Amino acid sequence: MSEYTVVVLGDTPPVRLDRLAGRARVQVSDAASLPALLPGADVLLVWDFQSDALRDAWPGSGPRPGWVHTASAGVDRLLLPDLVESETVLTNARGVFDQPIAEYVGALVLAFAKDLSGTWELQRQRRWRHRETRRLAGTRAVVVGVGPIGRAIGELLRALGVRVEWVGRTARAGVRGADELPDLLPDADWVVCAAPLTPATRGMFDRAAFARMAPSAYFVNVGRGPLVVTDELRAALLERRLAGAALDVFEQEPLASDSALWDTPGLLVSPHMSGDTVGWRDDLARQFEDNFDRWAAGEPLFNVVDKRLGYVPG
Amino acid sequence: MSEYTVVVLGDTPPVRLDRLAGRARVQVSDAASLPALLPGADVLLVWDFQSDALRDAWPGSGPRPGWVHTASAGVDRLLLPDLVESETVLTNARGVFDQPIAEYVGALVLAFAKDLSGTWELQRQRRWRHRETRRLAGTRAVVVGVGPIGRAIGELLRALGVRVEWVGRTARAGVRGADELPDLLPDADWVVCAAPLTPATRGMFDRAAFARMAPSAYFVNVGRGPLVVTDELRAALLERRLAGAALDVFEQEPLASDSALWDTPGLLVSPHMSGDTVGWRDDLARQFEDNFDRWAAGEPLFNVVDKRLGYVPG
Repeated sequence: MSEYTVVVLGDTPPVRLDRLAGRARVQVSDAASLPALLPGADVLLVWDFQSDALRDAWPGSGPRPGWVHTASAGVDRLLLPDLVESETVLTNARGVFDQPIAEYVGALVLAFAKDLSGTWELQRQRRWRHRETRRLAGTRAVVVGVGPIGRAIGELLRALGVRVEWVGRTARAGVRGADELPDLLPDADWVVCAAPLTPATRGMFDRAAFARMAPSAYFVNVGRGPLVVTDELRAALLERRLAGAALDVFEQEPLASDSALWDTPGLLVSPHMSGDTVGWRDDLARQFEDNFDRWAAGEPLFNVVDKRLGYVPG
Repeated sequence: MSEYTVVVLGDTPPVRLDRLAGRARVQVSDAASLPALLPGADVLLVWDFQSDALRDAWPGSGPRPGWVHTASAGVDRLLLPDLVESETVLTNARGVFDQPIAEYVGALVLAFAKDLSGTWELQRQRRWRHRETRRLAGTRAVVVGVGPIGRAIGELLRALGVRVEWVGRTARAGVRGADELPDLLPDADWVVCAAPLTPATRGMFDRAAFARMAPSAYFVNVGRGPLVVTDELRAALLERRLAGAALDVFEQEPLASDSALWDTPGLLVSPHMSGDTVGWRDDLARQFEDNFDRWAAGEPLFNVVDKRLGYVPG
């Protein structure tokens, strides 16, 4: 007696959608089965948010679901021309990752300030070598990205006494415009990228940006890999034009085992996990169920992406 | 024309006391020369706060300085019976280390929550292995020690959303008494020791204390080494009765290169550096100069240690 068909892309780990029981038929798909299932879908849940399967499946013939939800904050993989032009509503997981990612960035910044990696390395060598470290309070951060993740990052850093400037697409109250970024970089101790990946932001952290940062500064990317020209970041680190960096996201994920990034001096590589605290999958499923309740009741959805901008505005 | 003689114990790195120029004769001493210089000292500045030289020099005959200042927060090395019984005023470096140590503990707690050591280890192996980490907000910390360092640690953790209980010698407003500690330990995610070393606190973190902590909990010591029975901490870690620990202080410093602590699983060893941010030596010298100004003017000193309690009260 299910009224609706919900197609789920990806099932690793399996998604639990108990609240849809009896209300929707849930069909799990993969890249191979998605094209055949898509025409019969009322709703598509992109559970494997790293899949590119929709890129191949969407342009096909036949009806398309009226609502696509992705279990991720970034929607860059879903901004396909045919989907953007369509009437299909796109929603995302805005909100689930804010506090976890802010804490992760706080962990990185404090670890850099206190040279924890140096401590671990010296411990491996059984060497007692006292060093002076940095005081975090009073330092300056530039956070690029003013969605809820960027906001949460800046607020956590402020709570630690850091002076924070936020940079968004355009200037507004409390936010500097992207055109002001070059002037802000030289004074920053910490530059954190939490921007959405759009044509305007792709490759924004390049040789020119790193050249404007201080040699004592650290760079952190928790947005999307292609926001950074990683070869140019690597060059800046090798030439000690930057003190260090942390990348949680990459152009290709997983990062290939022969990538030069793994052993770039001063670079911390983590496997796209900054927002993934214990229970995050449950939080994502519950959030989709909440939005499904609205959809089934004919109410407006939350977290609706502006497909032209590439993120949820406001 | 100097009126006073200030004897400095230790000169590595050299102390700069520019504001004493023309007002006091500054004599740098070491363990060998201290006994001969002590009778002529109006003031003793213990610059090398890890030295035990005073233990041998103080009981000797002759006059003793009326004021001893130590460039450290802990005064345990100076609580010699003859000094405690004497009229000599003892002051310490209370205040200089509060914020730096709080930040250091914040770095450790966040690094544990986000498994940064696991990330470093996997990076060395060029392995991409996603893990779920802990959300810090909403966890519980017990901070043992309610001097300004313990206060600052708890306040920083609170700013990160942690629920903090402080434990002091006796219960008072906002502080639990030491007798309540056993009941607080089972619910703590983080137990931080920032207590002074006194006969009452020596060895307080022992097998019984670790047995009351959760297997998912972490322990941090930034106080003094002998607050912890390190063999019993090591046993708890080896038997996985604790998730991890960080020690910045040890019974013997520097830690011997053959100590079993260096490669204890889950233990981070750092070389007594939690409070030592860039410029800390200057801050210590300036603080002594400030107190010297008071002393020379006949005004009451600040940071006066209660020699019976073993710390600056209030």
